[in-house]
Amino acid sequence: MKLASYKNASRDGQLVVVNKTLTQCVLVTEIASTMQQALDDWAQTSPKLESVYQQLNASKLTDTLPFDSKKCESPLPRAYQWADGSAYVNHVELVRKARGAEIPESFWNDPLMYQGGSDDFIGPTDDVPLPSDKWGIDFEAEVAIVTDDVPMGTLPENARQHIKLIMLVNDVSLRGLIPGELAKGFGFFQSKPASAFSPVAVTPDELADKWVDNKVHLPLISEYNHELFGCPQAGIDMTFDFSQLVAHAAKSRNLSAGTIIGSGTVSNKQGTEYGTSIAEGGVGYSCIAEVRMIETIRDGEPSTEFMKFGDHIKIEMKDEHGNNIFGSIEQQIVEAELC
Amino acid sequence: MKLASYKNASRDGQLVVVNKTLTQCVLVTEIASTMQQALDDWAQTSPKLESVYQQLNASKLTDTLPFDSKKCESPLPRAYQWADGSAYVNHVELVRKARGAEIPESFWNDPLMYQGGSDDFIGPTDDVPLPSDKWGIDFEAEVAIVTDDVPMGTLPENARQHIKLIMLVNDVSLRGLIPGELAKGFGFFQSKPASAFSPVAVTPDELADKWVDNKVHLPLISEYNHELFGCPQAGIDMTFDFSQLVAHAAKSRNLSAGTIIGSGTVSNKQGTEYGTSIAEGGVGYSCIAEVRMIETIRDGEPSTEFMKFGDHIKIEMKDEHGNNIFGSIEQQIVEAELC
Repeated sequence: MKLASYKNASRDGQLVVVNKTLTQCVLVTEIASTMQQALDDWAQTSPKLESVYQQLNASKLTDTLPFDSKKCESPLPRAYQWADGSAYVNHVELVRKARGAEIPESFWNDPLMYQGGSDDFIGPTDDVPLPSDKWGIDFEAEVAIVTDDVPMGTLPENARQHIKLIMLVNDVSLRGLIPGELAKGFGFFQSKPASAFSPVAVTPDELADKWVDNKVHLPLISEYNHELFGCPQAGIDMTFDFSQLVAHAAKSRNLSAGTIIGSGTVSNKQGTEYGTSIAEGGVGYSCIAEVRMIETIRDGEPSTEFMKFGDHIKIEMKDEHGNNIFGSIEQQIVEAELC
Repeated sequence: MKLASYKNASRDGQLVVVNKTLTQCVLVTEIASTMQQALDDWAQTSPKLESVYQQLNASKLTDTLPFDSKKCESPLPRAYQWADGSAYVNHVELVRKARGAEIPESFWNDPLMYQGGSDDFIGPTDDVPLPSDKWGIDFEAEVAIVTDDVPMGTLPENARQHIKLIMLVNDVSLRGLIPGELAKGFGFFQSKPASAFSPVAVTPDELADKWVDNKVHLPLISEYNHELFGCPQAGIDMTFDFSQLVAHAAKSRNLSAGTIIGSGTVSNKQGTEYGTSIAEGGVGYSCIAEVRMIETIRDGEPSTEFMKFGDHIKIEMKDEHGNNIFGSIEQQIVEAELC
């Protein structure tokens, strides 16, 4: 099943069921007004939503609306938790290598994860307003999942059942602010402004045999300023699968329904040391920082600039027939109007 | 005005207005069912809630209930954002000194702040369930504020107006997990399990002349296993006031209504190098770690143990007449029943 949150006068938007081909949708207020309401009571709401989805796909419903990504909030316009992993260790290795550092051996068996801000996500086709483009603005294309209630201490083998929805995310990062924040030791804060998620969140069964071993086995496509920038396969080189990430997050606390957990920037090694760019005939990257790292390792300094006001990023994933699964994140970086 | 969230069958509890002396309360469903609803529309709801508060204090209401802290959730049982500062730089200096490190000069003019988990707070008198007491369980007594919507880029001088509520917090920390997490560079995650907040949140005007310069000028009292452990003055040695912390959090993003921002562990130097314990005749500390640091500096190793299952912590603040302002956080550490 496919779900989205349509913009309305409220902070949480209006839950809609979207058909498989992303052409039609229908309000489901009688089941749940918002995505969070649906997730709060998922055992009760999901069979009803699934039934609507089947009828919608079978064209048995009246009162449908043409589906329009531009009317979407992020599936959870605000969430109670956004925890982002960094499961593609190649990404981490590359960033460290460029500054001459090795990654600790533990990074291969203990997931990296940070607590992200979740109070004010940006819509999937909304502008990304930022006060300055001197802060090293970067996109990060990732896969994310949404859980129901996960009890403290849940083991990886039991975590899979708590993964209820899958979506894509643009985890906007301010690279210029990261070194200073990490040096302070408290993790990211100002360097991780509001993220945006794909217009549509889908249940794992929608991915059929592309959802295996708690990973999504499809390319994640990033187009930067309307040119292909990366299409790494999200199922490859994902050192920690989503069940491991959920279990990591739940080690010392319960996770409440609607918790979003991200994969980290999708990155493939492709049999090379650090992967190769689209220009080099490879699958490219899911953020600008990685290209800059490759350039630094190769040339001694980066040549690709970070994003400036006016730059555009599109992130999407297609099934093996070329059909857009989640709708597209399509965003432009703009200067924030400060008060 | 004083507000609380009574436990009910829902995840967010039931908003109640509490009288000044914490003896009576009243449901206000006709104004807002939950604390978050009230905060989402604060300009509309707060005058109505204030009116109820005045009538409650004047004993003009029927339908009142005796107020009972044990029936309370944290004022926001789950929140969209919990960002914890570390504004008492003495605390940071002490922790670093014990391991032979100096703090960078920048710590005196750039606030430390981490993004905390906010999806599943513990009630103020509920047990703190954890899987192990081998992880260095510690309490941290702090002051916290709640904002309305804060636009990106808000300056400190404009941030004060966004501080709508004040409360106390027990920011539970797992000291044994912190070094490993900080070494990974992504900040706290597993080392910061669910926090608990005081039964009651109050508007700044309730503190009258004790709310000056965006700081609370009253002692924060911690009783550990029923003995006084600390009573440092929250208005002293707070290097960054709450307006500065709000502005820091809003540098690169909007903060949504209901954002909670913490002061960090309250700590006074008292004219000494690192403060002194209650036993030494000082105002003591607001967490066990600081006492252990003093012991380490003095004796070469710590002698006070971290919390074990069964240990008890009480955190509260009284006005100059000895009246409890926020109700008391009273919690016991217990072993979590893992599934």
